[in-house]
This record gives sequence, C-alpha cells and structure tokens, in this order.
Amino acid sequence: MIQQKHSYTDYGDAYPNSRKLYVTGSRSDIKVPMREIRLSETKKADDSIEENESVRVYDTSGPATDPAVELDLEKGLPRLREAWIEERNDTEWVTERGYQAGDDGLGQDAKRIPFGPADKKVRCALGDANVTQMHYARQGIITPEMEFIAIRENMGRAEATGQVYCPSEHQSGLLQQAQTAAMRHANHQHPGESFGAAIPAFITPEFVREEVAAGRAIIPANINHPEAEPMIIGRNFRVKINGNIGNSAVSSSIGEEVEKVQWATLWGADTIMDLSTGENIHDTREWNIRNCPVPVGTVPIYQALQKVGDRPEDLTWELFRDTLIEQAEQGVDYFTIHAGVLLRYVPMTAQRVCGIVSRGGSIMAKWCVAHHKESFLYEYFDEICTICKKYDVSLSLGDGMRPGAIADANDEAQLGELETLGELTKRAWKQDVQVMIEGPGHVPLQAIKANMEWELDVCHEAPFYTLGPLTTDVAPGYDHITSGIGAANIGWYGCAMLCYVTPKEHLGLPNKEDVKEGVITYKIAAHAADLAKGFPGVQMRDNALSKARFEFRWEDQFNLALDPVRARAFHDATLPNDEAKTAHFCSMCGPKFCSMRISEDVRQYAAEHGFSAEEALEKGMAEKSQEFADQEGELYR
Amino acid sequence: MIQQKHSYTDYGDAYPNSRKLYVTGSRSDIKVPMREIRLSETKKADDSIEENESVRVYDTSGPATDPAVELDLEKGLPRLREAWIEERNDTEWVTERGYQAGDDGLGQDAKRIPFGPADKKVRCALGDANVTQMHYARQGIITPEMEFIAIRENMGRAEATGQVYCPSEHQSGLLQQAQTAAMRHANHQHPGESFGAAIPAFITPEFVREEVAAGRAIIPANINHPEAEPMIIGRNFRVKINGNIGNSAVSSSIGEEVEKVQWATLWGADTIMDLSTGENIHDTREWNIRNCPVPVGTVPIYQALQKVGDRPEDLTWELFRDTLIEQAEQGVDYFTIHAGVLLRYVPMTAQRVCGIVSRGGSIMAKWCVAHHKESFLYEYFDEICTICKKYDVSLSLGDGMRPGAIADANDEAQLGELETLGELTKRAWKQDVQVMIEGPGHVPLQAIKANMEWELDVCHEAPFYTLGPLTTDVAPGYDHITSGIGAANIGWYGCAMLCYVTPKEHLGLPNKEDVKEGVITYKIAAHAADLAKGFPGVQMRDNALSKARFEFRWEDQFNLALDPVRARAFHDATLPNDEAKTAHFCSMCGPKFCSMRISEDVRQYAAEHGFSAEEALEKGMAEKSQEFADQEGELYR
Repeated sequence: MIQQKHSYTDYGDAYPNSRKLYVTGSRSDIKVPMREIRLSETKKADDSIEENESVRVYDTSGPATDPAVELDLEKGLPRLREAWIEERNDTEWVTERGYQAGDDGLGQDAKRIPFGPADKKVRCALGDANVTQMHYARQGIITPEMEFIAIRENMGRAEATGQVYCPSEHQSGLLQQAQTAAMRHANHQHPGESFGAAIPAFITPEFVREEVAAGRAIIPANINHPEAEPMIIGRNFRVKINGNIGNSAVSSSIGEEVEKVQWATLWGADTIMDLSTGENIHDTREWNIRNCPVPVGTVPIYQALQKVGDRPEDLTWELFRDTLIEQAEQGVDYFTIHAGVLLRYVPMTAQRVCGIVSRGGSIMAKWCVAHHKESFLYEYFDEICTICKKYDVSLSLGDGMRPGAIADANDEAQLGELETLGELTKRAWKQDVQVMIEGPGHVPLQAIKANMEWELDVCHEAPFYTLGPLTTDVAPGYDHITSGIGAANIGWYGCAMLCYVTPKEHLGLPNKEDVKEGVITYKIAAHAADLAKGFPGVQMRDNALSKARFEFRWEDQFNLALDPVRARAFHDATLPNDEAKTAHFCSMCGPKFCSMRISEDVRQYAAEHGFSAEEALEKGMAEKSQEFADQEGELYR
Repeated sequence: MIQQKHSYTDYGDAYPNSRKLYVTGSRSDIKVPMREIRLSETKKADDSIEENESVRVYDTSGPATDPAVELDLEKGLPRLREAWIEERNDTEWVTERGYQAGDDGLGQDAKRIPFGPADKKVRCALGDANVTQMHYARQGIITPEMEFIAIRENMGRAEATGQVYCPSEHQSGLLQQAQTAAMRHANHQHPGESFGAAIPAFITPEFVREEVAAGRAIIPANINHPEAEPMIIGRNFRVKINGNIGNSAVSSSIGEEVEKVQWATLWGADTIMDLSTGENIHDTREWNIRNCPVPVGTVPIYQALQKVGDRPEDLTWELFRDTLIEQAEQGVDYFTIHAGVLLRYVPMTAQRVCGIVSRGGSIMAKWCVAHHKESFLYEYFDEICTICKKYDVSLSLGDGMRPGAIADANDEAQLGELETLGELTKRAWKQDVQVMIEGPGHVPLQAIKANMEWELDVCHEAPFYTLGPLTTDVAPGYDHITSGIGAANIGWYGCAMLCYVTPKEHLGLPNKEDVKEGVITYKIAAHAADLAKGFPGVQMRDNALSKARFEFRWEDQFNLALDPVRARAFHDATLPNDEAKTAHFCSMCGPKFCSMRISEDVRQYAAEHGFSAEEALEKGMAEKSQEFADQEGELYR
C-alpha cells in the first residue's frame, strides 16, 4: 500500500534524509503524502547493532517536494481532487466571472499579471445541488476526501497503535496489527487530558464523516481548488495551524507571495490565509491558489472595501456578493465573514483600551454606525450560505470584536458577538455549510480556558480557530512567543486551528524568515497541544528524537527536529567539525565530562548487575560495596 | 522619597527614554533601584493634550546603568549591603582560603587571571552565629534587605493600588493613597487565578519577613556578596528568572563571562548561575560575583569533579566541603546540591528514554553505584547546612533525577527524589538555612500542574525553581519557546523562579544574542504568569503599551517593550522613515485603510452622539439612520 520509490533527498536541505511516500487508500487515486525520516542505527555498548525505524510525519508541502512532479508555477499544481468532484455528478462547468476592472480598486490602468487565459471555465453546483462535504456527510456518504483524511490523521499513529490502514485486505475494518520498534517507543506516551474531546484510538473514514456531519469538524475544500490535499479541522483531530500571507499597500509582489505559500507549507502550515490588501488582489490570489497544496482562506471584505475606494459606508450587499462569487470561483476554501458585528455591540468597545482591532470588524462597525442598521453580512447571511454551498466554501465566522489588548479580553462586546456567531452557525448548518469560529486575540493565561468553554457552549461545538492568543502585550518583536504560549494552551483545551503570529506582529510585514519563525513556533504549540490531549502516536517523534539525543546520534536528532536546518547550524556554531557529529559528547560539557555518557554507564551497570531498588534495600550495603569495588577497575575505564 | 537626578538617557540604546531612579526606604542607605520610562503625550481628536504618566519597572541591571557610578571591573561593584551586614555584629573578617593549586584541575601550570590581591579578607559568622535571613526572620527581625525587597516588589503596584511606600510620613503603616492616571489604567486588570498563592494587595516588610520565616520564600544573600541588590524568590512575589552562564571546556573567556553577566542582568535576569566547567573556574567566578548586581548560584559538584580529574568515584566529602567553603567565601548566594539522589532511585532510571540528564545527578548516581552507599551529600547534609548558615548561602536542592525527555516525565525516580528533597528541606530549616527546590525539565503540558502540586505538598511549600519545563522534544533550536510555554504555565501555577533555556539548548553554547533571547523569552513567561496570578500592578505595563499602540505613539510602544531595540528594528525594516513613527498607520494596512483608525472614529462617534446599546434597541433604526446620514459628510472625511 505504501509507495516508496523516492530517494532520501526529496526534501533537499530543508529536511535531510527524508523522502516522500504515499499511502494508497481504497482506490488508487487516494494517495496520501507523508514524509519519512530515515534514521541511522544504534551501536550498542556490546557492539551489537539496533535498527532505528524510520519516522513518518504529516506532510503539508504538497507536490513541490515530490521529485516525480514537474513543478510549473504557470500551470499550477496537479488537480488531485478533479476526478472525485467530477464523478459526483453534481457540478457543471461555467465561464468564470473572472477579473473585472475595479476588482483591485485600480481602475482601467491597473497593471495586471493574469494567471492563464481569460474566460476560464470554473465549476459550480448543478442547479440547486449542495456540494459541501457536510452535505455528503449528512447523507451518509464517505467521500474520497474523508478517507484521505482518515489515512492522513493516522500517520505516526499506525506505528503507535499497531493499527495500519490497509483497505485491500479488509473491506470494512481497515485495521491491521503491527508490532514495531516505533510502536514500543510510543508506549512511553503519557495519558492526556482532553477536556471533553473524544479522540479515538484509530481514525476511520466513518469517524471523519460523523464529525463533519455533526459540525464538530470541517473539511475546507472548494470544488475550484482541486489542487489542495484534503485536511480536517476539528478538536478530535490533530491541531492545525494557519499561516497568513498577503501583499499590502506598502510592499510585496506576486512572486514573493507564491514563494511564501511554498515556504509556509514546506515548514508545516496546514492552511494559508491570503490577506492581501494591496494591488493585484485578484491576480495574486489566483496565482496563490493554483500553486497552493493546502486550503486557502480569505477575508472577502478586504477586497470589497478596495472596490469602493476604502470607504466602508459605501459597501453594499450586491458588491459584496459579487466579490464572494469572484473568490469562490477562484477556489477560496474558506471565507472569514464578520457577520456577528451587530449594531448593539459597537458602543461596547468605546471604553476599551484598544477599541476594535479586527480590520473586518472595524469596517463593519463603521458601516453599521453610518447606516444605523444591522450589516448586510448579518441580514443576507442565508444568501451567503447559499453561495458557499454551491462551491463548498467553508465559513470562518470572524471575531470582529476580538480583544486587541490584555485589558480588553473576555468583555461583553467579545462575548456578545460570540453568541451571535453561535446563532449564525445554526443558520449555516441549515444549509449544510461548514463553519468554524474565529477567536482572540489578546487574553491573559488564566482567562484562556473560559474562551474555549464559551465557544463550545454557545457555538454548538463548531471548531474554534484562534489568533494566538497573546498572553501579554509587553513584548512586540516576540509576539510569536507571547502568542505561542496562549496557542499551546488553547489548543490543549480544544481549539482546532491556531492562526500563527510572526515576530513582526504589530510592527511590520513578515519576510520569509519571519514566516518560518511563525510557522515553527506554531508547530511547537500544536504539537505540545496534541501531546497534552494525548493524541495517539504524536509522542513517537519526541521519543525518537530523545533516543537519538541520548545515543549521540546527532544527525538523527537534527533530522527529526521541526527545523533541521537551524538545529544543525546551532550545533555547528560551537563544534563545526564533522567528527563532532559522531562524537559521544557535546559542547555543553565537553569531551571529558558528560552526564549523558555517565548516565549510560549507570544504566549499563544496573543492567549487568541486576541491581535493583529491592536489592539495595535488602542486602547489606557494605558487603555489596566490596563486590563492586573489586570490579571497579573494569567499570570506569 | 524618590531621587530623580538622572536624565532619560541612563540606559542608552537598550532602553531609550528611560532613567534610573531610587526609592529610599526608612534609612538613607536603603535605595531601591527602578527604571522609569518616560512617555509622550496624547494629542486627542479635539486637539486637547493628555499626559501619559511615566511607567516604572523592576530593574535588575544594577549600578552599571547608573551614570553616577563609575564602573571598574577590576574593583567590582559598590558594596551596597556592607554596612547592614557589619552592623548586625555577628560576623568577623577572616583570611580567605583563596585559590589553591588544583582548584581548577589544572595543576601548577594553570594560567590564572586573579581578581584583586591574594589573601583577601572575607566574612564569616562569628563563632556559632547564624547569619541567614531566615534566622533573622524567625527572630522577628526585619532586615534592611527585607525592607528593600518590599519596596522593590511594590514597584508599579504603587501606581496600581494607590499605595505608596512612604516611611518618613508613617512609621508603621508605610502606606499612602495616590490617584494617578496609571492607577486608573491598572483598574482594567483581570482577576487572576493563583492556585493557593496568597498575594497581598500591598507588600510590607513584615510580610516579607513572614514569608521568609515560613520558608515560603528565600532571599539569596551571601554575606560575601554585598554587591547584590536584595531580591526574593517565593510564590507570593513576582515570578523571577535565572540566566545560566559559564565557560566550558570547549570555549569562552573570563571577559566574555563578565560581559554575559552584565548583558543578562541588563535584559532582566533576576539571578545568574555560573555553571563553568572549563579552565579558571575559581577566577572566573570571582570576577563574575564582584561584578554581579544579582544573586549568583553555582553547582559546586562541577568544580569538585574537576579537582579529581573528572572521576566521580574519587569524590570525597572532605574535598567537597572544602569546595563549598571556597565558594561560600567568594560570595556564592545559592548552591545547587543534588543530595536527593539516593541509591534506590538510580536503577529506576535504567528504562528511561534519556536516563539521567542532570550533570550533578549523574555524577552522584555514579558515585553511589561505585561505592554502593548513599552519597556524602546526603550523609553530610547537616554539615552542608552548617556551612551555609555561616555565610547565608541558600540551598537549591537539585533534581538529579529530572526527566530529560517527554517520555520520562513524572516517573517514580523523579517523584522519589522529590520526596527526599522534602525531607532535606526540613533538615535545612532546622538550622534556619534557606531552601528552594529544583524541578524539571521535560514535561508535557497536561503533566505540569501535578509537578507544582507535588512540590508544594512534599516540600512543605518551599519555593519551586524549574528549568522550563520543555513541553515537547521535537524542536531543538527553538527550546527557548518549547520551554517558555511550560515556564509560563508552571509560573502561573506557583513556581517562584524559572531557569531560562536558550535557543542553543541541547546543541551548543549560547552566545550573547542567545542569552538575550533566553532572558526576554523568560521575562515574557514570568510576566504572563504574574498577569495570570493577578499580581497587582503588573498589567499596568501592558495597558500603557496597548494605549500607546492604539494611539500610534510608536516610540512609546517601542520603549515600553521588553526589548525596545528589536521592536524598533522590526518596525523600521518595513517603514524606516522617521515620519512613519508619528504616522497614524502602520505597514500592515498601509496609509489608506487602518482598523485602529476606523476604530478610533467609531469610538469618537459613539461618544459624540451618546450612542449606546440601549438607545439602539429602543429607538427606531430608520429614524436614527437619517440623523446620522445628515452628518455623514463631516464624519468620514
């Protein structure tokens, strides 16, 4: 079932000694990617050799790291899901709305960089068909996307639980027993504390279907983004992370943005949000989506605002609806919609230290105040859902009232809006539209758990998707860290996706290195949360790395790291020679004195002499001591 | 009471617009340092001016940032506590043991860099006198150190609670009411969750005495380190952080180490541990202590091991005792002693993924196994305490069995040792020796709280001092972050001091930038923990920074940050011009479209029109809308 045709250099410098594998599902076109990290063997004290099983990890980098795929940015990625969508027979090809003058707010003279020919064909639901994954799930249908996800989520877990997804051999159970070295290591896993999440020992396609049907998880999968590899966002699955990219009025080009997409997914971003507010919004998004192996989210109101010359009060439902269709046709997988910003919540922010910090929220607040009525997002919410169900765009209900300062956390404006988001969730679910709920923001540590509990309560267990939260305001320049602390905690409490924060937050636009720093920090937070929840199998990577560390297998330690490049560079900064990477010591203690080596001696000693706690207590110490003293010379050479 | 003679450039590039202040206590030689950050004024929409009160923050940088003090590394820092120690009349001057051949394990040819003349005089308790702060506290004596600490801990809190330490006006109460702008901001503070800690609204010298007498807090203050500014470690006080420095066999010179001391305390290290294992241990330590404004800790077994050529089994009590006296005479403020490593715990580590990772722990484990008896640290623990009480060296009971991998967390070896540390705590307290307890290490998020609870339970509420803990093993190169997450959590749960971890942990020796990255990350963790505990006054800095952010007072935002240098540099990377620092927009949204500005508009609008939630509900919307439409032109220019 596992195709292993590649060499261990597929990922080049980023992930040395890694290769790309695919696990095939019940049909040959369900091919789930993973990255396999090959480890060296352990030379034991008695000169025997112990093999260290390869470690397989979740891989978000897409075909860009598959040497069998020829990458061509102008063509875009292979259309992985095309056949699945086609064979459902519920969509038709229509001529795209495409780019229209004014989409970028630049008038006729806009200098465009179009992707592909004009008047492309795009997919749309046939007639009144509902093409959402939630709709299929509620009909009892297990889609190829769901099976893909089940295999993907079990990655690493197969080794942990001894259960391997193996559809050819078992038509229904899909399970197989295996006993591997990796599995034995995984037995060291601590019991987690999952705060009401119910993570099964093994994730079946049927479990995926149930979670999506219940609204506890979403599969962002626009029928016009067939390039994306299916993934799931829900608290009974791995915690996911989102990376924001996007050009702004101040800087950035299309080429840089596509590069950021590839870069962010290489390091582990599970979804990308394109938050462009500058020139060429339409074209930038098209290039990004065509080359993005993960779901893409947007905040459509940003583009709508540009279309009206940055005057919020001039926004109309018609113009916004048109923007939604424009983006849905391009393949946007989820829309952030700030439909919960109601008129009555706006004055509640007046006494805040930081007022309204959500851009979408402030736009809608201004519109509401100007027109003194509820926003068109709220009024026309059912029509928004009707558009979403035609393309399977998931809704990410925006928290326009999220706190932008510790002082503003958990206030009445935030909670009021959250309740409205719960009401909107039910309205979306009536049309089988997938929903997740956005959350804060800036929240002190002790106030984070309440956010998760409120969300589950008032939003009916729809997945939560938070920005951090930042646990203090005093460290601009380090807000990946202030927020990584909050993100790890809320992920543990049940948050399904964590929106990354880069070190440049509040200060400037992230460059490539900032994007990587943000992604890695959030991979740490998500992994720490998965461990804390007791997600089966995830601790295997920790165990494999720690074993490599203990055995001075330096290269393995680097290669198992979230960022092998930095791990190696930091080691080499002190001990650059190649010998140092096989040496049984490190720069902290130097060659003569090493706790790990002493500890290995102690372990060996205990094993050789059957020296146990009971023995130590029972036997006279002096007598025993003489025994050891006789062998001393031999022992401590 | 507050001396404000300096200009706002005392801290140079590190902290622009800051100056050094001292608050004087009940006697003129109790002068407590603080750093005052001056803020610019707010220009309001109606062109009126609002003053923004200066913010005072806890200052660990010592005399190095006082322009009135002439710094001379060869002389060392001023001996701040000399008179207090002298006037207690319980010490005498003796000729120091000083450097002896072999102290560095280098024999006669060692190339020394001595500090000061040979045969210096040092202090020792007179006869059987007990000179510990705990001893004084238990006698009911409030020392100048305790009063110093009370003033220091209240910093920022005065503004928050309106209570100012003002001994000249009130002989006993020490309180004064004040109502300031800063105080009003602090009222935004969230209630904390302190897990049994009992933090008073205002910290009096008497409260400090009580906490020290009860063993819930320690004041590391060797009588031979009078240069150190008194500070306290206990869970009813601010969470503290420690920075490790130290040369190793592989690299580093004395000059570099002293520079690291200054650097770490400049950025906020509350204590320093000198973990040198390389050449010139004795001299390096002397230079460090003489120039260190914060308490210095060591692990004496490291040096003892060097004296016996790195052969743990050759260690003896006599040699170790001699090392303790050598270091106590130099002024080490706390000793890490791994006296809890008992013979019966050693085999419990044999099945661990990472065995014993504590250097001290592995040395003692090897000694125990070699001699098959309990270590001399355990056997002679009472004599160790007797040495400590003669110099007031605090004990930091080392966790030699701490887990070095997620898989090894909270196991029987770790817990067994912790119980023994509890037993040793009682033995130390019998001699009024101050004690804190060291803790892990590598612990997954869900297992951290248990560590804190066990420690309080079995160690009788002695302060806890943990290394991180790291919440995952998979991110070497980012272990300041993996551990910062754990540190913030355990600080919140009640841990009194957090030992920093730098990005180079597990990989190499930290350089200056790594030390800073570690310190700032841990300042974040400690501050997040203080906020979470609801420590009065600490949120004021968050509030002041967020207000500056909202009002586009860029320079104030930078200057209030934990690291103004990086905040400014990150801003300037995108918008380098000086105008950008007064502009009412930032690089994220660009000049035309800005959520903060819109939000300000909304706020102003709400205020001007008395627009409230009730009104919106009561009045007809259409009617109100017309009202607003009439004024629209004016509003949205």
